[in-house]
Amino acid sequence: MEPNSPQASPPFAYEDLYVGQRFTSGTRQVEQDEIIAFAKQFDPQPFHTDPEAAKHTLFQGLVASGWHTAAMTMRLLIDSGLSIEGGMVGAGGELTWPRPTRPGYILQVETEVVELRPSRSRPDRGLATIRSETKNQAGEVLQILFARLVVPRRNELPSA
Amino acid sequence: MEPNSPQASPPFAYEDLYVGQRFTSGTRQVEQDEIIAFAKQFDPQPFHTDPEAAKHTLFQGLVASGWHTAAMTMRLLIDSGLSIEGGMVGAGGELTWPRPTRPGYILQVETEVVELRPSRSRPDRGLATIRSETKNQAGEVLQILFARLVVPRRNELPSA
Repeated sequence: MEPNSPQASPPFAYEDLYVGQRFTSGTRQVEQDEIIAFAKQFDPQPFHTDPEAAKHTLFQGLVASGWHTAAMTMRLLIDSGLSIEGGMVGAGGELTWPRPTRPGYILQVETEVVELRPSRSRPDRGLATIRSETKNQAGEVLQILFARLVVPRRNELPSA
Repeated sequence: MEPNSPQASPPFAYEDLYVGQRFTSGTRQVEQDEIIAFAKQFDPQPFHTDPEAAKHTLFQGLVASGWHTAAMTMRLLIDSGLSIEGGMVGAGGELTWPRPTRPGYILQVETEVVELRPSRSRPDRGLATIRSETKNQAGEVLQILFARLVVPRRNELPSA
């Protein structure tokens, strides 16, 4: 097996990734209108769709659906340096939303590769676990995502 | 503490939920156009945005972004009988996508309450964990979601 090569340029294959590798996304400002538009389609609850009514909920103001925060995070990931050979394909993940996303926040995603392992069943691919923190402009963490990605191997492992 | 009351009608408070309680959502057909529109905004990769190019990817055809499946699932949950006092507020969750969502699929979500516990810090709320399976019309599971919901208590626990 080739040693990991931090100098590799994207799109990355399994061999180009290493535990501890970090990626920082660009930024994206969240507008009130998009929070409302997303929520009307997918999560129509007053604290996501109605700025007035939202004041009287436990959020005390309009906040984005957690699924909207997740979707915006995906877009920032796609546009960041973490580009995977054949595309970014997730097998699943774990989400936490420590704080809600509010209108005007500027989001940025910091990602670290936290685990790498070859697939048991498929010698042509590996599994990478990444940990992505979505933060606002004050550095407050809005979302923590652990995602399991399917990553093609550049060189298949010889069968032992 | 009151015994759980299966006959309670929504919106549910913590006391109305019980482990094993089940909810079945309505259905929703997924159109190719909405798969593409969502992906262009949040997950612009060829297997989500370009039906032709998608044929030559590991999905062998257009599939919805996993985040789109998650968002559609949320909408089905909101519209199903599982309505929570004060709104459905998630603290986080765990997602698995065993199969991709393809155009034309008719989605339905089956949900079960799998764990209930009072909040350690807040006597006015509890935490409910639900397990939601998103299936297509053939009964194939597309997504499994474990979600942790914050649920208000109708009656605060007396401090012991």
